[in-house]
Amino acid sequence: MALVGIIMGSDSDLGIMKDAGDILQQFEVDYEYTVCSAHRLPGETAEYAREAAGRGMKIIIAGAGGAAHLPGVIAAYTILPVIGVPVKTSTLSGVDSLYSIVQMPKGIPVATVAINGSANAALLAVEILALSDERLQQRLLAYRQKMADDVLKKDQKLKEIGAEAYLKS
Amino acid sequence: MALVGIIMGSDSDLGIMKDAGDILQQFEVDYEYTVCSAHRLPGETAEYAREAAGRGMKIIIAGAGGAAHLPGVIAAYTILPVIGVPVKTSTLSGVDSLYSIVQMPKGIPVATVAINGSANAALLAVEILALSDERLQQRLLAYRQKMADDVLKKDQKLKEIGAEAYLKS
Amino acid sequence: MALVGIIMGSDSDLGIMKDAGDILQQFEVDYEYTVCSAHRLPGETAEYAREAAGRGMKIIIAGAGGAAHLPGVIAAYTILPVIGVPVKTSTLSGVDSLYSIVQMPKGIPVATVAINGSANAALLAVEILALSDERLQQRLLAYRQKMADDVLKKDQKLKEIGAEAYLKS
Amino acid sequence: MALVGIIMGSDSDLGIMKDAGDILQQFEVDYEYTVCSAHRLPGETAEYAREAAGRGMKIIIAGAGGAAHLPGVIAAYTILPVIGVPVKTSTLSGVDSLYSIVQMPKGIPVATVAINGSANAALLAVEILALSDERLQQRLLAYRQKMADDVLKKDQKLKEIGAEAYLKS
Amino acid sequence: MALVGIIMGSDSDLGIMKDAGDILQQFEVDYEYTVCSAHRLPGETAEYAREAAGRGMKIIIAGAGGAAHLPGVIAAYTILPVIGVPVKTSTLSGVDSLYSIVQMPKGIPVATVAINGSANAALLAVEILALSDERLQQRLLAYRQKMADDVLKKDQKLKEIGAEAYLKS
Amino acid sequence: MALVGIIMGSDSDLGIMKDAGDILQQFEVDYEYTVCSAHRLPGETAEYAREAAGRGMKIIIAGAGGAAHLPGVIAAYTILPVIGVPVKTSTLSGVDSLYSIVQMPKGIPVATVAINGSANAALLAVEILALSDERLQQRLLAYRQKMADDVLKKDQKLKEIGAEAYLKS
Amino acid sequence: MALVGIIMGSDSDLGIMKDAGDILQQFEVDYEYTVCSAHRLPGETAEYAREAAGRGMKIIIAGAGGAAHLPGVIAAYTILPVIGVPVKTSTLSGVDSLYSIVQMPKGIPVATVAINGSANAALLAVEILALSDERLQQRLLAYRQKMADDVLKKDQKLKEIGAEAYLKS
Amino acid sequence: MALVGIIMGSDSDLGIMKDAGDILQQFEVDYEYTVCSAHRLPGETAEYAREAAGRGMKIIIAGAGGAAHLPGVIAAYTILPVIGVPVKTSTLSGVDSLYSIVQMPKGIPVATVAINGSANAALLAVEILALSDERLQQRLLAYRQKMADDVLKKDQKLKEIGAEAYLKS
Repeated sequence: MALVGIIMGSDSDLGIMKDAGDILQQFEVDYEYTVCSAHRLPGETAEYAREAAGRGMKIIIAGAGGAAHLPGVIAAYTILPVIGVPVKTSTLSGVDSLYSIVQMPKGIPVATVAINGSANAALLAVEILALSDERLQQRLLAYRQKMADDVLKKDQKLKEIGAEAYLKS
Repeated sequence: MALVGIIMGSDSDLGIMKDAGDILQQFEVDYEYTVCSAHRLPGETAEYAREAAGRGMKIIIAGAGGAAHLPGVIAAYTILPVIGVPVKTSTLSGVDSLYSIVQMPKGIPVATVAINGSANAALLAVEILALSDERLQQRLLAYRQKMADDVLKKDQKLKEIGAEAYLKS
Repeated sequence: MALVGIIMGSDSDLGIMKDAGDILQQFEVDYEYTVCSAHRLPGETAEYAREAAGRGMKIIIAGAGGAAHLPGVIAAYTILPVIGVPVKTSTLSGVDSLYSIVQMPKGIPVATVAINGSANAALLAVEILALSDERLQQRLLAYRQKMADDVLKKDQKLKEIGAEAYLKS
Repeated sequence: MALVGIIMGSDSDLGIMKDAGDILQQFEVDYEYTVCSAHRLPGETAEYAREAAGRGMKIIIAGAGGAAHLPGVIAAYTILPVIGVPVKTSTLSGVDSLYSIVQMPKGIPVATVAINGSANAALLAVEILALSDERLQQRLLAYRQKMADDVLKKDQKLKEIGAEAYLKS
Repeated sequence: MALVGIIMGSDSDLGIMKDAGDILQQFEVDYEYTVCSAHRLPGETAEYAREAAGRGMKIIIAGAGGAAHLPGVIAAYTILPVIGVPVKTSTLSGVDSLYSIVQMPKGIPVATVAINGSANAALLAVEILALSDERLQQRLLAYRQKMADDVLKKDQKLKEIGAEAYLKS
Repeated sequence: MALVGIIMGSDSDLGIMKDAGDILQQFEVDYEYTVCSAHRLPGETAEYAREAAGRGMKIIIAGAGGAAHLPGVIAAYTILPVIGVPVKTSTLSGVDSLYSIVQMPKGIPVATVAINGSANAALLAVEILALSDERLQQRLLAYRQKMADDVLKKDQKLKEIGAEAYLKS
Repeated sequence: MALVGIIMGSDSDLGIMKDAGDILQQFEVDYEYTVCSAHRLPGETAEYAREAAGRGMKIIIAGAGGAAHLPGVIAAYTILPVIGVPVKTSTLSGVDSLYSIVQMPKGIPVATVAINGSANAALLAVEILALSDERLQQRLLAYRQKMADDVLKKDQKLKEIGAEAYLKS
Repeated sequence: MALVGIIMGSDSDLGIMKDAGDILQQFEVDYEYTVCSAHRLPGETAEYAREAAGRGMKIIIAGAGGAAHLPGVIAAYTILPVIGVPVKTSTLSGVDSLYSIVQMPKGIPVATVAINGSANAALLAVEILALSDERLQQRLLAYRQKMADDVLKKDQKLKEIGAEAYLKS
């Protein structure tokens, strides 16, 4: 059963949104991809959001670009936390997506992450689930530790071989 | 029976959206105001849009600010022409509203006017209705003539009394 | 006889504006392309706009980039609905085109669509024409249905083969 | 014991951040205000974040303006969900705050809400807490219902007394 | 006979455009104000531009706000130098006006000055006229000298009485 | 003897600024290229500007990118008309250059053209020189006529062979 | 003898730039105000910069708004560290000033602080001077300590009297 | 012993930050690269900043992109001058990095240079060190002289061989 729903407005967003699924996979959190459009399938979008909690979902990650209404529309139909991922656009670089997602009116929040930041959307979902799941807390701490170690290793390597060699490596 | 529906996301937009109603009144086009929120009343919004054509509406003018989803959500549920009015916001001056409305994805158009440009939204509605209503064409021509005359009179006055006096008048 | 005029400021905009013609073709709406420049051919532009209604045109779709005056100039000479398409520019990505088209002063509206959104300009034109043409209404509903089906199929495929395979397909 | 920590970079942000506290009060969720600066009190900020989970906190709402580092710095020291509120600034209207908060690098998410959107930050916190608290779910549904009713009442009033009277009321 | 035409899209721009007239007055250059709208009076605008040279005009200063087409439209009808003044707008602060004026396509230049910079538009006009008028060159040099002297006096005063006193004076 | 000086802040701007020289060549107006930097050669820049009029120059075209001070610095040292060309930058696309050039303070104007708009800078220079040179007026009219003819030809071709064929041609 | 020169493009910037002087006063660092304009007094500006080091200056703080060339022009004439303060403008809120100051080309750096951030410009100057002045190091540490204490006191007060009372106090 | 620390948030910034090291090398100033992340290694970042002065460092150059907190976080822990380099980002071109670095609150300054301007960051560091190191002053003057000579040579070459040949060379 999917704890996290990853929904996107178009299959062209999948390349970006897959980062979210990969993170959840890594944390062994069940998830499910859905392509659905707030504009082309408004009824299905509403249904998806209304039924999510009943189907056992805890969190919805919604990615969209341009006049990116999907996260806000989902949020309107559910009281589950909705995380919005503004997808970069070819004309406005995702500023349009960002404004369309983050500037929600009082009453219906969408937790917005960086443009194309679907990996962080998944990590945020894990942090939320971890509030009542100690194993996820451990995995988050391990994930952070690994990130820290990676930076330390890179720093060490840079100090050992120097910038010139590092850039070529 | 209302030919034009004027719908807004919040009653705080009424000050701006009333310009649309006033223009329609002037052209003797039946209209109707509705306050409805794509986020707080998503079901009612969908219903409004789905039933608009059946109720005899021809055009919907939708105004909203911030993450302004109302026009796009309405457009998703109807094939009537939808005109979007981006309402100025206190933080981003309406650039957020503009991007949220104008950057609609392929398939579901929203005819966008200037930030706070609800008067033009109404004039656009009249132009559309005038395509099959000769009296409206005559009124539009008269309206344009009056606008032209007004500018000419202002120009004449400025030339007669000079800039200094004009600014004080 | 062309019901919709598609006019562009430069033949370099044709790649974008052809999306509009293709949509109209698909809906069997007569249209006609014109290359005309508000700045290089101001007289011809004015003439085009003034004569459009008399020639049987119902709607004008005007695309331009940069200081994109064409839609507004056309709108000044006709009471036909004018739909403006802001064309993406190499320096400002079309924000200049968008502002030049959407921020029209009170009195002369231009129905603005997304940057490079000429397909939606055509769909908006069809929606307007459909107000008095039931066949177009049917075609619009079918077009929407097909869009919906396409998204559903993509969703199904994604669920069947998974994200990894989908991205490679 | 505070379940939600509301922390702000300066006491000048309190006018905005108090919306968050008021919402939490309304939902009977324990919270606590802290004024702390990522730049003026970096050690205390780190300590606050490191100790939050141990003190029983579940969620941290962090508001800041300008080069708004507080939410990101907090997030770096804890695996609790951190919600960032970009506070409007006098020079850049909060675009600086928004970019400084939402554009976090991969690995350390901050759930960002609208500029000055601290009420939504609190609602998001409630949605998260409600995942394991049925009473909060009921309160959220009631809150949504009340919002919906309020819009419906406003709509009814507008339809009864008309726009002119409504604006004066 | 007016050597410089100062034309504006609306009489609401007069407060800004009068700076231009005042500078020309000071330099004893004949000028004339005109209120004309590229959108409301397109024919008259074209006529104004086409006849300007024949009437003895040398330079046209055109100010407009929003989708500010006036300078570009004027430039399309004349080979006289056209100076564009982007007027500040209430929604987009004049960025819309600036882009609409400065981003002219190749072939039809508009000499753009700062937002609300009509005084500089007039000084630019004087610089152009001074190319063939030695008295104007002298006046420009004197104007510059006076500006320099003014700054020097202010600097001296500041150094004498100090910042505290200066701000109160 | 050069009537128009084309000066640029870096030889990397030459690709853009050469458009200006090519236009002047076409109009048989003497011009001269100079590479000089307001920041790396401030003394030479000042000298260039101070001596320009004495050397017979009438107009200076100055192009620069980023914190583009060259046009304004030149303008500070001469009463000749200075035309500024904002050069596109790799980070901010030339918005930085545009603001640095167009937003000059009262007293020292710079005639700004579009980002990368050096061809229009040259045409503006020709328009200014044409005020006292009838041959240049004739050439400008011919240039405009040719531009108009080119657009007409393109329009004719498009109408003859259709959009599909046109795009391939 | 002034160790720090505070120079501004216009006496209208004094209200902002005085923050810098007040900080330096507090740290007992000699400073001197100068009003000088890169555009109206280019020669004096150059002279100021060229002579600064010889007169014993160590650091120059330069504030300007709009096309803010003063810091960059100063930097071009001296190898002393130049700190630039972008002053907020009425039209573009200081984004123009910021870009004009921070985007300096390779070779001539300007240390840029926040829009209207002249206090920080002074603190940066003190940090630089403190590198070879232990007393200034002590004062900086004390200044930081005091800032920290102030925030702690505010936090304590907020916790004692609550948000409601705090906002009224 | 390193006088200048060059620290970056990610090894992906090394390509940009190496310009700083190369300049320092050229000036024979000891420096040291560090990869450290304000978000992934917050403790190490704090430690780095707190110990920098004790280890003999005089200046820290910190580069980061996106929600670029590294320079500000470093500055919070040290009274050494901190120079911030906003690194260009793929989505917002570095405007996010710039705002996150330059808009620091009163009390904790960061000396900001251009987007990707790490070479200037190093030159600024050298200017600061040169205040108490006459050899560095001489090298700075020589560096400036060489830059000036390079531009002069380019100008000469352009004048000799012409623009066409220059662009091909």
